[in-house]
Amino acid sequence: MTKTDSTRAGHIQIRDPFWSEYIRLVREVMVPYQWKAINDLVEGAEPSHAIRNFKIAAGREEGEFYGMVFQDSDVAKWLEAVAYLLETKGDPELEGIADDVIDLVVQAQREDGYMNTYFMLKEPGKEWSDLAECHELYCAGHMIEAATAYYRATGKRKLLDAVCRFADYIDLVFGTEPGKLHGYDGHQEIELALVKLYHATGNEKYLELSRYFLEQRGQQPHFFEQEWEKRGRTLHFPQLSMVHDHEYSQSHLPVREQTSAEGHAVRLVYMCTAMADIAAETKDAGMLAACRKLWDNIVNKRMYITGGIGSMEQGESFTADYDLPADLAYAETCASVGLIFFARRMLQLHRNSEYADVMERALYNTVISGMSLDGTRFFYVNPLEVYPEVLGKNKNYNHVKAERQGWFSCACCPPNVARLLASLGDYMYSAEADTLYAELYIGGRVETVVAGMGVVIEQHSDYVSEGRVRFEVTPEQSAEFTLALRMPGWCDTARLTVDGKHRQLSSGDSDGYIRLTRMWQPGDTVELCFDMPVKRMKGHPLIRQTFSKVALQRGPFVYCLEEADNSARLYQLRLPEESEFILTEAEGVLHGIPMITVSGKRLKSAAAWVEGLYSSDAALASEQAELKFIPYFAWANRGVGEMSVWIEEEAKR
Amino acid sequence: MTKTDSTRAGHIQIRDPFWSEYIRLVREVMVPYQWKAINDLVEGAEPSHAIRNFKIAAGREEGEFYGMVFQDSDVAKWLEAVAYLLETKGDPELEGIADDVIDLVVQAQREDGYMNTYFMLKEPGKEWSDLAECHELYCAGHMIEAATAYYRATGKRKLLDAVCRFADYIDLVFGTEPGKLHGYDGHQEIELALVKLYHATGNEKYLELSRYFLEQRGQQPHFFEQEWEKRGRTLHFPQLSMVHDHEYSQSHLPVREQTSAEGHAVRLVYMCTAMADIAAETKDAGMLAACRKLWDNIVNKRMYITGGIGSMEQGESFTADYDLPADLAYAETCASVGLIFFARRMLQLHRNSEYADVMERALYNTVISGMSLDGTRFFYVNPLEVYPEVLGKNKNYNHVKAERQGWFSCACCPPNVARLLASLGDYMYSAEADTLYAELYIGGRVETVVAGMGVVIEQHSDYVSEGRVRFEVTPEQSAEFTLALRMPGWCDTARLTVDGKHRQLSSGDSDGYIRLTRMWQPGDTVELCFDMPVKRMKGHPLIRQTFSKVALQRGPFVYCLEEADNSARLYQLRLPEESEFILTEAEGVLHGIPMITVSGKRLKSAAAWVEGLYSSDAALASEQAELKFIPYFAWANRGVGEMSVWIEEEAKR
Repeated sequence: MTKTDSTRAGHIQIRDPFWSEYIRLVREVMVPYQWKAINDLVEGAEPSHAIRNFKIAAGREEGEFYGMVFQDSDVAKWLEAVAYLLETKGDPELEGIADDVIDLVVQAQREDGYMNTYFMLKEPGKEWSDLAECHELYCAGHMIEAATAYYRATGKRKLLDAVCRFADYIDLVFGTEPGKLHGYDGHQEIELALVKLYHATGNEKYLELSRYFLEQRGQQPHFFEQEWEKRGRTLHFPQLSMVHDHEYSQSHLPVREQTSAEGHAVRLVYMCTAMADIAAETKDAGMLAACRKLWDNIVNKRMYITGGIGSMEQGESFTADYDLPADLAYAETCASVGLIFFARRMLQLHRNSEYADVMERALYNTVISGMSLDGTRFFYVNPLEVYPEVLGKNKNYNHVKAERQGWFSCACCPPNVARLLASLGDYMYSAEADTLYAELYIGGRVETVVAGMGVVIEQHSDYVSEGRVRFEVTPEQSAEFTLALRMPGWCDTARLTVDGKHRQLSSGDSDGYIRLTRMWQPGDTVELCFDMPVKRMKGHPLIRQTFSKVALQRGPFVYCLEEADNSARLYQLRLPEESEFILTEAEGVLHGIPMITVSGKRLKSAAAWVEGLYSSDAALASEQAELKFIPYFAWANRGVGEMSVWIEEEAKR
Repeated sequence: MTKTDSTRAGHIQIRDPFWSEYIRLVREVMVPYQWKAINDLVEGAEPSHAIRNFKIAAGREEGEFYGMVFQDSDVAKWLEAVAYLLETKGDPELEGIADDVIDLVVQAQREDGYMNTYFMLKEPGKEWSDLAECHELYCAGHMIEAATAYYRATGKRKLLDAVCRFADYIDLVFGTEPGKLHGYDGHQEIELALVKLYHATGNEKYLELSRYFLEQRGQQPHFFEQEWEKRGRTLHFPQLSMVHDHEYSQSHLPVREQTSAEGHAVRLVYMCTAMADIAAETKDAGMLAACRKLWDNIVNKRMYITGGIGSMEQGESFTADYDLPADLAYAETCASVGLIFFARRMLQLHRNSEYADVMERALYNTVISGMSLDGTRFFYVNPLEVYPEVLGKNKNYNHVKAERQGWFSCACCPPNVARLLASLGDYMYSAEADTLYAELYIGGRVETVVAGMGVVIEQHSDYVSEGRVRFEVTPEQSAEFTLALRMPGWCDTARLTVDGKHRQLSSGDSDGYIRLTRMWQPGDTVELCFDMPVKRMKGHPLIRQTFSKVALQRGPFVYCLEEADNSARLYQLRLPEESEFILTEAEGVLHGIPMITVSGKRLKSAAAWVEGLYSSDAALASEQAELKFIPYFAWANRGVGEMSVWIEEEAKR
């Protein structure tokens, strides 16, 4: 491990038949839209006031704070996404706008380094009095992330220096020493941001401060209860229980003692991301063990097949092992973004392709389900089954939408998707000593360093539609190193061609990678073709909600049935065990990914239903039905209709 | 129709192998316990303060009001249950206690007739300022019900006269005339109570006032919004939306325009009960049509197979047509009690056995599921499927308990069950002109009048276990009239023996009754034996939650699987289409009702599950399993465990 961000593989350009369009949407649609939103320029939308709050704090305008207590973070996330875009492609106009925003933010900063427009404008003097609810360190964390990204992209230090002053101030306020606040934020975020600040600056104080926040969490007496007493038992969000429900914020136990994923899903994975960072940087075996336990619990007991996490709306939270209701799922887009952050850190700590498999599952399903195919509308919640006729009537589904929404007053998901997609290049490869690992197969050009040698890797990918990828490896001069190619978890057999020579593969090494160690010459080629049959996925037999059901998966994509292709009442459909799958030409909305067609059945009442709700004379008859599945990420792009990922399998028995 | 309560069939004594025990529990356990509860004499329980509130209001004690805004109704419901007990069996000690309570209540009454300890003690001067939330007329209604029942049982007028003064006062306050409040209560109850007061007194003013409250409901401008503005927009229950969610209280539309069952289920059925009363008393065809529409919607689209109503916890409310989740069900015990009230009124209006069928379904399943077999513990919520391991973790199930509870701070259900069971005799027969209808088959002796002739009917019932009932008909002297015997909806064939002569029956008349019109002689006997096979009940094909599943029913009882008999993971069980049912000797907890045993299957992973949550190599194998079903009402009497009413049916196809 080095003191620089070890997950960063070098200069990256994405040119991919599937992903380039998403990145174009981020650049041309999402980031400009988000800019309008934070400047209150979107007609008909509720004002965000995020930029205006900074202008007022900077003394440039008169007015009052408006918005959520964490409104500042929208500006930070926008800046962060801009930084990633600038890193992959220069854009002087965009950079100019970002520089202006940075000037504004820095002008708004208080002399002592403090930055938070809510407290500066609305509750001056009450800083650090309600960590449980008020997201002060959370906002700080996002600004630090923006600053480190902008510095990495442009080399400009203005915001970086500002957040260092802020972090230095935070370090004076918080800590175990007497006289300092023994606190931490209700919403984890600063912990992972401080590690990035450490990577950007090399200043170990920030790493130590991150470690402090993690270690302090969940200690007794409980900080949130203490500060609540101290401030006279006031609540910022009286309808929530951020102060007293300690599981909600993963402060029910010290982080090292937590063995199951509890509470708010986004907070948990942000916390785990920082824990993995700290484990890596400090070689802390206990912290690594805690990360492993939480990871195992999430992915082996509490994750949807789509890579979504959080089974309930209440608290946007995890529930219990093997409790994964399809219709009531919360599966917040941001939580899957955070799961990808966590997975990427785990890859660095414990080499195993399972982490990249989960990254891929979350990315290709829940994360991109979170946005419409035109980049203008978003899901916060990603259910695996929707019956629109009960939405709005059965209030258990109040969080579920059958259509993506324009923008949210609590706009966390769209900017989170934007910053993840804009930085997607960071997730493609990871380098470690003399090995370059290919984690996600995405076409493009990467300049990196392996075993001390500069190497350019050009990847041509047909991964999502054909399972085919081709690498051109060009070291500066011939050099020995290892190229380790992830064997995806969904793939049983692959064909490998190295410089034109074929090799049949049935698996990678025990850690899930196919390793090619050789003296590489400039222009060497490696071709991989992953067999990508349609798979009938089953849930663990302890998941009662998926029992005897099946979900289709092909390559990284989980599929679903939609009313648009199968007509209504999807629950009547059955998939016989022996039916064969046909891949059908993709339609426009599917980005070239094939549909799956299969001969199935629809069960219907054998006779006209007699009056009444219940009857003993009501046999079901089955009729032939052609079932059509589309990739889950593409659902709800053709109007409101039913959707289901899982379908009852009909056994031959 | 007469001006007296036409549903009252005469003096009734219940002697029934099934029901006598329940009535004993009401007399010996529930009513004494409830007396202790309202007097704060239950050790370890939260004080009720209900009697003490009256003592303070009467000037007998010093102190402050304590409890819910509707705390007075607990005293009223206790008095009502006592009245029914006294009616069937004298008990001077109990009557003395009740007389003392009545003295207390009347002493607490204000000079102008007003009675409500909450407003008298806690918010004097604010009477009638928050009808939407504060249950003033609801409490009045319960006291009126108690008074009419006590008058009927004992002939004593003291409480009756007091509630007449109160009703007279209410009549001065409310009405369409200028200067009166154009309001009505958020929780319907007074409407049905005023009809009882009309029956008890013959004073048409009370009938008219009831009609006014019904007709005013849902008129625009909306009363709840107006009074809310007038009182400065304060809320008594700020966490609920009783003021602005008009569907919740069925005030979203005038009652005649309501065509679907919306909102709080108890309120809806209490309202419908009064609507049916008004339709009967005033021969209002429009009101009858509105009752029919709401009835049809409830029983043909929104009722559980157990006779439970209310598919969601939020608002304890109905959701949408055919939306009947088994696990999330609210199905409040009180709502099924109210459904029985409504059904009994409909029987008088529109002669059809379907009403008594629903009465029976609700009574034998949800209502008695509401109490433990020893009468000391109660369910508020009656789900049709429970997996205890997720309770407390998945907050969607916060309302669901796997064990009955001792007493509730909002103690509506136990007293409601008590007053229904104590008055069960009122539901056995209904007389109309020269016909006596037998609605519920419950053993006992009834003195009644048919076609002007006094008749004693002694019923010997083995109905619940064998489907057998025997009547001894003893008119004062020989007389011609009709005995109409309900053919239960679950029965396809029955054998009838009249004075020893056999008749095979395959159905009743088109309205569902078997009519025996003859010159009855003292001592004539009628025997009925209803064939009572185990039936495989299916849900309407539009109920997605029951699709391809089956529930067992035998006679009036719906059955369920419990973990105690079938071990855990009930979702793995399958019931083959062709399996045959064996009735097994009842165990102690089942009141002599047989268990059903049937050869079924348990699906299990064919091989040990590979690591991870999802796998494509996971076939299910089935093994033989003996399935045991017990009557639903008896569930959760053997500790905490899984329970399911519905089981997946395995087709032969």
